Amino acid sequence: MREILLTPGPITTSDETKAAMLRDWGSRDNAFIKLTARIRKELLTLVKATDSHTCLPVQGSGTFAVEATLQTLLSPTNSKLLILINGAYGIRMAQMCKIMGRAFEIYETAEDTPPETDYIAAMLRQDPLITHVAAVHCETTSGILNPIEAISEVVFDSGRSLIVDAMSSFGSINIDLSQLKADALIASANKCLESVPGVSFALINKKAIEAAEGNASSHSLDLFDQFKFMEQSGQWRFTPPTHVLAALDQALRELHNEGGVTARGKRYAKNCKFLVGGLERLGFQMYLPKELQAPIIITVRMPADDRFEFKELYDALNDQGVVLYPGAISKEKSFRIGCIGHIFLEDMDRAVTAIEKFLKTIGVSREGLKPAV
Amino acid sequence: MREILLTPGPITTSDETKAAMLRDWGSRDNAFIKLTARIRKELLTLVKATDSHTCLPVQGSGTFAVEATLQTLLSPTNSKLLILINGAYGIRMAQMCKIMGRAFEIYETAEDTPPETDYIAAMLRQDPLITHVAAVHCETTSGILNPIEAISEVVFDSGRSLIVDAMSSFGSINIDLSQLKADALIASANKCLESVPGVSFALINKKAIEAAEGNASSHSLDLFDQFKFMEQSGQWRFTPPTHVLAALDQALRELHNEGGVTARGKRYAKNCKFLVGGLERLGFQMYLPKELQAPIIITVRMPADDRFEFKELYDALNDQGVVLYPGAISKEKSFRIGCIGHIFLEDMDRAVTAIEKFLKTIGVSREGLKPAV
Repeated sequence: MREILLTPGPITTSDETKAAMLRDWGSRDNAFIKLTARIRKELLTLVKATDSHTCLPVQGSGTFAVEATLQTLLSPTNSKLLILINGAYGIRMAQMCKIMGRAFEIYETAEDTPPETDYIAAMLRQDPLITHVAAVHCETTSGILNPIEAISEVVFDSGRSLIVDAMSSFGSINIDLSQLKADALIASANKCLESVPGVSFALINKKAIEAAEGNASSHSLDLFDQFKFMEQSGQWRFTPPTHVLAALDQALRELHNEGGVTARGKRYAKNCKFLVGGLERLGFQMYLPKELQAPIIITVRMPADDRFEFKELYDALNDQGVVLYPGAISKEKSFRIGCIGHIFLEDMDRAVTAIEKFLKTIGVSREGLKPAV
Repeated sequence: MREILLTPGPITTSDETKAAMLRDWGSRDNAFIKLTARIRKELLTLVKATDSHTCLPVQGSGTFAVEATLQTLLSPTNSKLLILINGAYGIRMAQMCKIMGRAFEIYETAEDTPPETDYIAAMLRQDPLITHVAAVHCETTSGILNPIEAISEVVFDSGRSLIVDAMSSFGSINIDLSQLKADALIASANKCLESVPGVSFALINKKAIEAAEGNASSHSLDLFDQFKFMEQSGQWRFTPPTHVLAALDQALRELHNEGGVTARGKRYAKNCKFLVGGLERLGFQMYLPKELQAPIIITVRMPADDRFEFKELYDALNDQGVVLYPGAISKEKSFRIGCIGHIFLEDMDRAVTAIEKFLKTIGVSREGLKPAV
C-alpha cells in the first residue's frame, strides 16, 4: 500500500524523484554546477523571469528563504516593511522583523478575509517611510488565496517594492513576473513542485539584489553574498544539499512533462473539488467560501459531536497509509487536508472512503458533523 | 564503476544510506518525531553528552549550525569571542561575528601551526571582556588537527566558555564531552558520519542554552527557540529535510555496526596512511608533518614541473569515477585529497593507481613532483 501525505508539505513525491537521490555528488564538481544552473534557470522560466530576476537557492525550509530575503532586501536603517497578515506566515514575517531589528508595520485581516487594496493604498499614502510590502500568496494556515495581482498594482503605483511568499502556490498557480510587479518571489521545493524538503529559493529582481550589499545581519542567510558568489563561480557558498537538489532537478522535469504549471494546477483543482465534494456529501462543512479556496489545502470545520476526535481520525487514516496534518487555524476548531503532491483522484477517493469508514466506526451521522458554531 | 568522492564532504555514502531516502515522511507525524528523537540521542551518545548537553539540529550546511551557535550563545551586548584561527573556517567565524555585530578578537597562526595554549591563557588574562573561545578541531583547509583537549583546559581554567567546530572530526575522532569542557560542539551529517548533506547540528550544554534567550538576531537560526519548541513537542519549528534525516538515521546505524567512532577512525587512518604512502612513493610531498595530520584530508604540495596541471589530474580522475576537491589552502600551491566517507583501501588504491597512470601520460617523473619551494 502506497503511503500518501495529505498535508501542506512535505508532500508525496514520485518514485522517480526519490530515486534521483541515489547518487552522491561532488558539490564543487562540474556536473553539480550544471545541475544547479539548470534548476535556477527552470525556476525563473516557470514565472517568466529569466531576464528580470535571479534565482537564489537557500539551504533549509521555506522560512529560511523568507528570512534570507528580508535580511537581504531590508536595510537595517533605511527600510520599513508593511506586512499583510491573514494567517501564521504573515505573523511569522512580523516576528522575523522584530528579531532582526527591521522596521515594520502590519495590516491584519481575519484568516478568511483577504486584505483590501484601497486600505493598503491608504496606508502607503499615510506612511512615506514604508519602502516594502510583503504578502503571502496562498496562506497555508487556512488555504486562502490572496489577490497578489491587485496588491502588486497598488504597491507599484505607490513606488514601493513587493515581496511575495509564494510557498504554497508556486508550481500550481500561474505567476507571471513579466506582468506582476514583485521584486521578490519566495518558494520551496517541497510543495507544488513535488520535490523533497531541504531547499527553498528566492527569485529576486536583479536591480534589487545589486542594491542589497551589506544589509544582512546573518552570513548564512545573506543572499547578496550568495548572488555574487554564484554568478561568479556557479557554485554554492556553503555545502548544498546535493541529493535534495538532484531530486528537485527530476521533479522539475516531471512538472514539465505533466504540462507545466497549468496542468498541475488543474490536477490539484480536481483533487480539491473531489475532496471537498466527498466531505460535504458526508456532512462536513468547509471553513472557506469556494471563491477564496485555493486548490492547495482545505480547512474543515470541526464537527460538534464530541464522539468525533480528530486525533482518532488521524490515527485511523495513518493505519491505512494516509497521513493527515495535525496543525490548524487559530480562530476556530478545524482540521486541514492537503490536495497537493504526487497524488491523484484515486488517492482522494481512498482518503474520503477511509474517513467515511471511520465515521461509521464511531457512529457519527451527517447531523453530528455540523460544526459547533 | 562505483563513483567515489575523495573530498572533505559531501562524501561517498553507502547504498543503504541513500536508499533510506526512498520514503516520504510527514514532518509532524509521530513516526518522524521518533526518528528525530533517535538521531538526537545517538549524536549525544557518541560523545558521552546525553545528560549534560542537548542536540539541536539545523537545516542546512555546517556553516548554518556554526552561525546558529554563535547567534544563540553570544549576546549582542555582553559577550566577546576569541577565535583561534589557522584556516578558512576560523576566518569564517570572524566574518560571521563582524556581520552579526558580535564583539570578537582573533589569535591567528599559520595554516600548519596549532595555537599555543600559553598564548591563549595570556590573552584571556589580559582581556577580561572575553566570554567565549572558539576553536576548530580539524581545520579542513589543511587537514590539521588542533589540540582541543589542551585548549579546553586553558579556557575552563580561566572561567570562559568553549565552542568547538568539530565538523570534520565528529564521528571519526573520539571526543568525550564528559571530560572535554566545551559548551558547544558543532558538526554536520555529511562528513565522518557518512550521511548526505542538508542537516547539521550543535550539541549545546543545557545550562548554556537555557541562558541564551533573546540573543539571536535571526529567527531561523535561533537555537534557543528551536530548543524550547523541540523539548516541548519533539518537532522541528520549520519543515525539516525529512529524507536527509532518514539517511542520517541509517548512517548512524551503520556507524554503530562498524564498531563506532574508534573503528571508523581506524579505517580512515588506514585510508590516509595508504594514500600518503602511495603518493610519497610516486614522489609527491605532503604539506603537513605526520604528527599534525588528521586522517580526514591530506594536502599535497604542488609539483614544480609545469607539465603537472591539477585541472588535468582532476579531469583524468573524474573520467574514472574518482572525484577530487578543487579547493586548496591559501599560503602555498597545493591540492587536497579526502580519506573519509564510505570508502576503503581498494578505493584509495584505485585513486593512487589512477594518479600514477596520469603521471605516465603527462611524462612527469619522481624528480618533477618535487614542490617549487
